[in-house]
Amino acid sequence: MNFAIDLGNTSAKCGIFEGDELVEKLEGLGIEQLIDMVNHRLPANVILSSVNQEVGAIADKITKEVNCLIMSHKTPVPVKNHYQTKDTLGLDRLAGVVGANNLFPDKNNLVVDAGTCITYDLVNKEGEYEGGAISPGIHLRFRSIHEFTARLPMVEVEEEVPWLGKTTKLSILSGVLHGTMAEITQMIRMYASKFADLRIIVCGGDSQLLKRNLSVHVTFIPDLVLIGLNRILGYNVKGL
Amino acid sequence: MNFAIDLGNTSAKCGIFEGDELVEKLEGLGIEQLIDMVNHRLPANVILSSVNQEVGAIADKITKEVNCLIMSHKTPVPVKNHYQTKDTLGLDRLAGVVGANNLFPDKNNLVVDAGTCITYDLVNKEGEYEGGAISPGIHLRFRSIHEFTARLPMVEVEEEVPWLGKTTKLSILSGVLHGTMAEITQMIRMYASKFADLRIIVCGGDSQLLKRNLSVHVTFIPDLVLIGLNRILGYNVKGL
Repeated sequence: MNFAIDLGNTSAKCGIFEGDELVEKLEGLGIEQLIDMVNHRLPANVILSSVNQEVGAIADKITKEVNCLIMSHKTPVPVKNHYQTKDTLGLDRLAGVVGANNLFPDKNNLVVDAGTCITYDLVNKEGEYEGGAISPGIHLRFRSIHEFTARLPMVEVEEEVPWLGKTTKLSILSGVLHGTMAEITQMIRMYASKFADLRIIVCGGDSQLLKRNLSVHVTFIPDLVLIGLNRILGYNVKGL
Repeated sequence: MNFAIDLGNTSAKCGIFEGDELVEKLEGLGIEQLIDMVNHRLPANVILSSVNQEVGAIADKITKEVNCLIMSHKTPVPVKNHYQTKDTLGLDRLAGVVGANNLFPDKNNLVVDAGTCITYDLVNKEGEYEGGAISPGIHLRFRSIHEFTARLPMVEVEEEVPWLGKTTKLSILSGVLHGTMAEITQMIRMYASKFADLRIIVCGGDSQLLKRNLSVHVTFIPDLVLIGLNRILGYNVKGL
């Protein structure tokens, strides 16, 4: 049993793997709960990854009985990384492309991770990570409209949003939800026009929302980042 | 000579009109400079519109020799307004659709105003304003990515941005610039699929940026809001 732990901008996730299989997923745990859980369940290996905090202090609290790999921009990964500023590359983005390339090695893969930010990342069928794009996630769009203007209200996601908003709240809902779907749809079309035989994999906290609203053909793998982290663990631990 | 003054979220603009013709445009003036300019040049009429401040105090400082119309959500306009929360409808949005309907009265018109926010507003060929959408403008997207995440930098617009960003800065540039163009392109396609014979009019502070980057067919009228305000002035002042 191995654990893959992803500490994101807004939430912590832990994937519990038997070999390549994700058998259990824990979300919304605090750091202390995570540490207690690891020390109680004693997996053979843990990989710890974070986009926004130092994980050394967390690793120090994990019992020595557990082999703990701290993911960093220097960790060897099973894709060729063409990103030029590797030290500022979000480790979740890198884990996502490793996961995609592992699941569909004979395809060009575009990973669309819809979380705090929406990231677009391309890994080609030669296993080369080519870079991508970062745009604001859905919640960031709502916040920016409210906080950076004088009079527009804070709005939260709703189901069934009309295209033509006839109130200010519905206008914002339409612009953010339909606008984000429009962006993703057209970005996918653009990438598909440049890369033949492209598989689109959608993951991240807002994947369910995208599943309900996106009309273009994609593969939903909400836990792609955890799958990628587990793959990186396997790549770095002898005998796995 | 009539003045149309638009006090936006980030800048003040004054259009100087002879009849329907915009003969001069002033931008970046402070409030005091605007008032001095009006009192010095003494136009016959001024229309004052603001999305974020009380304009009564400004109007009070304008000499009584000038007829001053303060635009509000109660001002009669030459379109039928189907918006349900008229008191929170941005007056710039309303002025934009009035301008569009005035310039192209026999068309369904979609106004895309790319400023602090990006607004999409539809006025049909019967002169009925049907509502629309509000999404974050380009600068708001850059700000939200930086201010609402832990590690991503503040980025400003650049020319010539690759689709595949191989640095974090270029990833953000790609996601915001290409992402916004993707959103607008696909939103326009969606509206065009629902409204036959649709003319798309692009205006606002970022229209030049859109002109360089948008590949879909649109009509650029950067000063549409001023044109609409001047039209509303004409609709409300006898003999104009």
